Amino acid sequence: MKNVGININSQKDPENQILNRILRKLQKKCNVVVFSDAEELKESRSEFDFVISVGGDGTILRTARAIGNREIPILGINFGNLGFLTTAEGRELEDALEKACNDEYSIEERMMLECTIKHCGIEQKLLALNDVVVCKGTLSRVINYNINIDGTHYNSILADGIIISTPTGSTAYSLSAGGPIIYPTLELVTITPICPISLSARNFVLDGGSEININFDQNKENAFLTVDGQEAFELNNSSEISIKKSKNKTKLIKTHNYDYFNVLRKKIISRIKE
Amino acid sequence: MKNVGININSQKDPENQILNRILRKLQKKCNVVVFSDAEELKESRSEFDFVISVGGDGTILRTARAIGNREIPILGINFGNLGFLTTAEGRELEDALEKACNDEYSIEERMMLECTIKHCGIEQKLLALNDVVVCKGTLSRVINYNINIDGTHYNSILADGIIISTPTGSTAYSLSAGGPIIYPTLELVTITPICPISLSARNFVLDGGSEININFDQNKENAFLTVDGQEAFELNNSSEISIKKSKNKTKLIKTHNYDYFNVLRKKIISRIKE
Amino acid sequence: MKNVGININSQKDPENQILNRILRKLQKKCNVVVFSDAEELKESRSEFDFVISVGGDGTILRTARAIGNREIPILGINFGNLGFLTTAEGRELEDALEKACNDEYSIEERMMLECTIKHCGIEQKLLALNDVVVCKGTLSRVINYNINIDGTHYNSILADGIIISTPTGSTAYSLSAGGPIIYPTLELVTITPICPISLSARNFVLDGGSEININFDQNKENAFLTVDGQEAFELNNSSEISIKKSKNKTKLIKTHNYDYFNVLRKKIISRIKE
Amino acid sequence: MKNVGININSQKDPENQILNRILRKLQKKCNVVVFSDAEELKESRSEFDFVISVGGDGTILRTARAIGNREIPILGINFGNLGFLTTAEGRELEDALEKACNDEYSIEERMMLECTIKHCGIEQKLLALNDVVVCKGTLSRVINYNINIDGTHYNSILADGIIISTPTGSTAYSLSAGGPIIYPTLELVTITPICPISLSARNFVLDGGSEININFDQNKENAFLTVDGQEAFELNNSSEISIKKSKNKTKLIKTHNYDYFNVLRKKIISRIKE
Repeated sequence: MKNVGININSQKDPENQILNRILRKLQKKCNVVVFSDAEELKESRSEFDFVISVGGDGTILRTARAIGNREIPILGINFGNLGFLTTAEGRELEDALEKACNDEYSIEERMMLECTIKHCGIEQKLLALNDVVVCKGTLSRVINYNINIDGTHYNSILADGIIISTPTGSTAYSLSAGGPIIYPTLELVTITPICPISLSARNFVLDGGSEININFDQNKENAFLTVDGQEAFELNNSSEISIKKSKNKTKLIKTHNYDYFNVLRKKIISRIKE
Repeated sequence: MKNVGININSQKDPENQILNRILRKLQKKCNVVVFSDAEELKESRSEFDFVISVGGDGTILRTARAIGNREIPILGINFGNLGFLTTAEGRELEDALEKACNDEYSIEERMMLECTIKHCGIEQKLLALNDVVVCKGTLSRVINYNINIDGTHYNSILADGIIISTPTGSTAYSLSAGGPIIYPTLELVTITPICPISLSARNFVLDGGSEININFDQNKENAFLTVDGQEAFELNNSSEISIKKSKNKTKLIKTHNYDYFNVLRKKIISRIKE
Repeated sequence: MKNVGININSQKDPENQILNRILRKLQKKCNVVVFSDAEELKESRSEFDFVISVGGDGTILRTARAIGNREIPILGINFGNLGFLTTAEGRELEDALEKACNDEYSIEERMMLECTIKHCGIEQKLLALNDVVVCKGTLSRVINYNINIDGTHYNSILADGIIISTPTGSTAYSLSAGGPIIYPTLELVTITPICPISLSARNFVLDGGSEININFDQNKENAFLTVDGQEAFELNNSSEISIKKSKNKTKLIKTHNYDYFNVLRKKIISRIKE
Repeated sequence: MKNVGININSQKDPENQILNRILRKLQKKCNVVVFSDAEELKESRSEFDFVISVGGDGTILRTARAIGNREIPILGINFGNLGFLTTAEGRELEDALEKACNDEYSIEERMMLECTIKHCGIEQKLLALNDVVVCKGTLSRVINYNINIDGTHYNSILADGIIISTPTGSTAYSLSAGGPIIYPTLELVTITPICPISLSARNFVLDGGSEININFDQNKENAFLTVDGQEAFELNNSSEISIKKSKNKTKLIKTHNYDYFNVLRKKIISRIKE
């Protein structure tokens, strides 16, 4: 009997039809815990053989951060747009569960970022699978971001914001801001400026093991930090931001061979029609 | 006796030293009205032979919008960074005033945009010398902007925001977002997407006489409209946005020949060091 | 009886099937002259009521330059990829001819560039409907292009090449090099650098009436000038290049209303799949 | 007694003044071999404790390829523009030689690319420290590049050319074409398209261990392959191109600590004034 957690984006399954398909399939084979959302999964601190994530890539991002240092493999069932991180499409749900229960799968590890915000003597640690973004408030002026890498001054960039992205996040917001696509299993970090006034600000790719510190010349009122575009934190005058590779990986279950480049081409083309 | 208005960015002149230089110079030659800010200038509705704007290009933008349809020539005295719109540097103040009083100057006309926001049966008209920007709130999701030009569907762009820029604004925010530089006295409008998810979204230059309408697929909660980056308006579900060339021009006083390309090169280089 | 010239891209009609369809349709209605290629059309110097161009946009470019200052309307029949300049698709040939013969059409005028190359006391004048490109030879070093606009120094750009584009050409090579899309009937010129080493080199849009001169710091050996990507000229040490709006327009026949933005969206999307 | 080779860019030292400074300094300490150019160094196949490269970064590139699999450390003395790869400036020549002779230095290893061109049964192997570029001839049409990575189809890109760059080369031609800057000691390869017609073509960063194959749809007449922008090869119909990480590294001598980011900022700013 395997232990399985389930995190479903409830908007994709308002009448529990997907959940019932899962429960029917896993009946008598697994002990199942159903979470009402990622927050509950996070707080449970339970261990599982794997966690089923139902929704799109956005749900995977929430599931991955909720799992955090438990490193539980994620079986992503896609009911969203083209899935980059999911294991299988909705129609393949039963087949994917079958394989997962029989250990017929491989694991693809993805690096995550650990972001530390210190302010007022309090330290807050955040995980990100896609990116950490520091940006000005909608109606405030551009900010001069001082960026240090491993204790050395890298650059000062006058811009709307700065994206610190994993390879997984390189096809998300960073790409919209002009960043390069990074092969997903590499351990690298990309710094991509958002609408830089500084024309000398370019996209920069550095070793995943680097520690990035971001400071502001001016006061940090109306500056925000977002994690995977899903969680936001307001910064203040005393905020100190530090970003480095997390010790923990996100483990994505792969039940069949897939052609990354084929998915990438489709994803890019889907962004053209959007 | 000429009638002269004065709008000073008070941060640049906290102890009225600049104001006193101006008053000393204009003594007995002009009737002078000193405004405490651009808002007061706007509400005065008075006519002047010219208005003196003291500060940088940002102060010119405020002065130009405050003058609105009065089309009063602006004498800009630069106490900011490199000025693109100002008439003279701070050290040249007396000389520039002398020339302005003796009508020894030419006028450079710049097109402005008139933006109409309709919501809840109320219609609000705004002027912009640089740009009108429609964008999502800092923490909200990307928006699908439907853009019509002269009543015909132009494109749907999934992005953080859309910049509608005059030639004057082409070297401001639009440039940071990747837009082209437009020769300043042309009558053109540039549409520049901000961080588009749609890779097919490109910069587009169209006739200044075109009318641009922007609608949203989703609700407009957490969408904002800003004018010259200085005034902001929250949009709601029933907001309709229409942007076209204003009938009125901003009239910039030029007291000496200047080499636009020389200033442009310096401006661009100054953005590199920034 | 109308006088009609025909220029067919022979690769599209190796067995004269299209030509025969045209001749059958025009029989007894028109006096027809068939040219073996654009060069023959150019040298004929004959006047026509209109010239039929069979092929894609590339054939229109050749036809337009061949017509030159005769300003003969062009009826473009598209047998290529998505046509931006053509009047009708191949299957609509007979219908388009019918309308053209009955004067049931409008004319869309497009500006052209006139490029003058002076070297060794010889002056050569060239027309371009899309663009004039000055670039280094494949295997030579980057060139420092000194660009003057109306006699004033605009910028020095160290780059592979410089594209001087009409609005018609803005969706061609200039777009590949990062240039903006310009509404096609405007009278503007865009300067787009190709792979600039100078990071300060940006796209620049200026009035169509401007005269652009390009000089080189170093010797001009291994520099080339191309017209519409179809005709090439080797430059030498004494070459002087001057580009300005041609007095003559290309006149495109439009037999039905068309939605420019719709074609533009399709064209952009077609470039994504390519 | 150390064995030292010397490769001087003769344009930088027409009267042997630099050479004489070197010989004076090394007198009685080293056995010295002076090469007339990189080609001679390549053909010598001799081993040295280190090779002195006098010139700029371009001379380092030639020296590195000439050294090839011998992996001899390079002491670069800069007499060019801002040097990214050189050990010391010209005025520091004696000091740098002193340290090199006393083994007071560290080695910075840089990955190189090995490019194999097969045609007509002949196989040609080339080294590159910066980049391998495949591009169309100046006057030929765009080429459809089919790119395979480790035997899997990556993408088909319709473009002027394709740049395959090392991290060292990421600040050279790839940057001009819009590529990201890669931290120099990483083992990565960047694929950067030159003026792509395919708007979906983006910059792509992949593991240095990947093997990249490039094929052409059409005939390869008028296609060229260049190495570090310094050596060129004409391709033909039967050419097959394969690019992978070389087993050998370029070893750059560092006689003092240096701040990479500081040099990077200066380099970028120098590209703005250029």
